Amino acid sequence: MSDEFSRIEEIKRRLLTDSNEVQITIGDDGAVLTPSDASQILSVDAQVEGIHFCRDFATWNDIGYRSFVAALSDLAAMGAQPRVALVSLILPIEFADNDLYCLIDGISEAATAYRSPVVGGNLSAGAQMSITTTVIGQSRKEALTRNGARPGDAIYLTGRVGRAALGLRCLQNDKEARGIDFVHCWRRPRARIAEGLKLARLASAAIDISDGLLQDLSHVCRASNVNAEINSDAIPLDETYCDLAKELGHYPLALALTGGEDYELLFTAPRDTPIEGLGTRIGRIVEGTGKVVVLDERKRVLTFKNAGYRHWQNK
Amino acid sequence: MSDEFSRIEEIKRRLLTDSNEVQITIGDDGAVLTPSDASQILSVDAQVEGIHFCRDFATWNDIGYRSFVAALSDLAAMGAQPRVALVSLILPIEFADNDLYCLIDGISEAATAYRSPVVGGNLSAGAQMSITTTVIGQSRKEALTRNGARPGDAIYLTGRVGRAALGLRCLQNDKEARGIDFVHCWRRPRARIAEGLKLARLASAAIDISDGLLQDLSHVCRASNVNAEINSDAIPLDETYCDLAKELGHYPLALALTGGEDYELLFTAPRDTPIEGLGTRIGRIVEGTGKVVVLDERKRVLTFKNAGYRHWQNK
Repeated sequence: MSDEFSRIEEIKRRLLTDSNEVQITIGDDGAVLTPSDASQILSVDAQVEGIHFCRDFATWNDIGYRSFVAALSDLAAMGAQPRVALVSLILPIEFADNDLYCLIDGISEAATAYRSPVVGGNLSAGAQMSITTTVIGQSRKEALTRNGARPGDAIYLTGRVGRAALGLRCLQNDKEARGIDFVHCWRRPRARIAEGLKLARLASAAIDISDGLLQDLSHVCRASNVNAEINSDAIPLDETYCDLAKELGHYPLALALTGGEDYELLFTAPRDTPIEGLGTRIGRIVEGTGKVVVLDERKRVLTFKNAGYRHWQNK
Repeated sequence: MSDEFSRIEEIKRRLLTDSNEVQITIGDDGAVLTPSDASQILSVDAQVEGIHFCRDFATWNDIGYRSFVAALSDLAAMGAQPRVALVSLILPIEFADNDLYCLIDGISEAATAYRSPVVGGNLSAGAQMSITTTVIGQSRKEALTRNGARPGDAIYLTGRVGRAALGLRCLQNDKEARGIDFVHCWRRPRARIAEGLKLARLASAAIDISDGLLQDLSHVCRASNVNAEINSDAIPLDETYCDLAKELGHYPLALALTGGEDYELLFTAPRDTPIEGLGTRIGRIVEGTGKVVVLDERKRVLTFKNAGYRHWQNK
C-alpha cells in the first residue's frame, strides 16, 4: 500500500483537467478559483460505507460516481451551475491502492460529465470508509430555495421516484439481473442540473429527493410554512416497476413516496406557470403549518409508516 | 437522542450569525454567498477520532475548536482571508446530543474568532466520529503557493514549533498539569491568518506546519524544485520546552522539527525582503531537487527517524 503522499500524486494525475474556472488546483494548501461576479453556492454531502453504500452492491467506480452525483444534486436543487468540487476521503488501513484509484476514476467520470473538476481534497486514515464531497456552483439568478412555496402553487416532480430504492432492494434480495434497470438507477443516479437551471426562473421552491419524496417535501412545507396535498394517482409509476416492487413485497406507491436516492427534483410553481415539460404535476400547496398529506383518487388520506430516511431514527 | 432533523435545527440555532458575506445560510440545499470579484480559495480538512484526536485528551468543545482552526490554517498558508465554512460530521449512534452541542459550540467559538461563519454542513451516522471542515476564503492578491521558493531565499518560521506535539505527549503520559501551556497549544491552536495576509505580498512560498516542519518544508522543496538547509541552532526553542521534552524522553530539536499541529507558517522570501518581524530566519533555499537537510552549528548533517506524520506509514 502506498503512503499518503504517493497516493495524492496518483490521484492528482487521475483528476487533472483543464478548466478556466481554476487558477490553482490539487497540490497546494488550497485551490484558487478564477474570479467570478456571480453568486457562489456551496454544499457538502457525505457517503459512509455501511450507511449509504455497501461494497458488495456496487463497484468502487460506481460508489465514486454516485457520491459525486449525490453532492451535485444539491446544486441542481438550488438552480446552480456546478463549478468545482473538493473530495475528502477516510480510508481504512486495508483499503487497497487499486480500489482507491477505481473510486477516483468513478469520481473523475462524474466530474467530467458534469463539468465540475475536483480541485482539492483530503486523505485520512480511519476505521470506516467515507467520502465527503463539497461542491461549489454559481448562479446569476436568484437561488431556488425551499421557502418560496405558496398556497395555490402546484407541486411537480421531474422523472420518476422509487426506482433507485427498488434497485437497492433487488441487490439486497439477490435479484440484480431481474431488476438491472433499477439497480442502474441506484448505482448511477443523475443530478438534474439542466432542469434546475431552467427552474431557477420558473419555480417558487425546489428540493432534491435524496431521503424520500414525502420527507423532502415536508422540508419545503416547513420552510415555506404551508401544507402539501399529494394526489397518489398522479405519481408516475410504470408497470415493470410496480410488478417488481410487489414481487419483492413492497407497496409500489409507498416505495415511490418514501424511497430515496433517485435525486429527482420536487418543485412548486404557480398553477399557470409554463413549466415546459420539466415535470409531472403531483399535487398542490395549501394553507398550513408544514404538513404533507397523500390523498387517493377518492380524496381519502393515505398514511405511510416512514416518510423517508433519517439518521438516528431509521434502523 | 434526537433525530437528524431535530439536531440540524439545534445546530442551526447555535451557529446562526449575521454576516454580509452570506445571502442564504444553513437550512436549504446549499448556502449562497454574496457575490465578490476576489479570487475564492478553497480547502478541506478532516479530523478523525483515534487518528487526529482522542476524547480522553480534550473536551468536545476543544475538539470542535481545533478542527476548525486546522482547516483555516490552510487559508493562512495561501494568504487568504476566511469567508465562510461548511462542517460535515459523522457521528456514532451512541454520540450524545450534549456532546454534539459542545462540539458545535467549540466550532462556533472558532468561527466567531476568525469571522468565518458556518453556512452549511452535513450530518451522517457512522461507526467512527469525524469532522470534515471545508473553508472558503478570498484574496485580492496573488495566492501564496508552495512552488515559488528560489535558491538564495531565506526560510522563516512564525512562532515556535514542537509545542503542540509536546502538549499531546504530556497528555499521553499523564503530565497534563506539568505541561499545561503546551497542552493548551495542542487543544487550542491558532491559525496565522493575519500573518498570511501580510505574507501574500512578501513571501515567495508558504505552507502551514500541520504534519511536522521537515515534512511540510519538503513539500515546498518538491513543489519549487529546490533544496532547503535548516540551521538547527536557529530553531527557536525555550528552556521550559526543552526541559519538559527531555523529561518525557524526547530530543527537543527532533520534536520541534517533526511534531505537527502547531499550525505555524513556514515561508521563504528573498534575503533582503523586510519581513516585518513575521518570523525567525531558520535556514536557506539552495539549488536541488526537493530535499531538506538539517545542519548543526558546525555544518554537520543531522538525521531524523521520521520527518513528520503521514497516514498509512506512521503507526
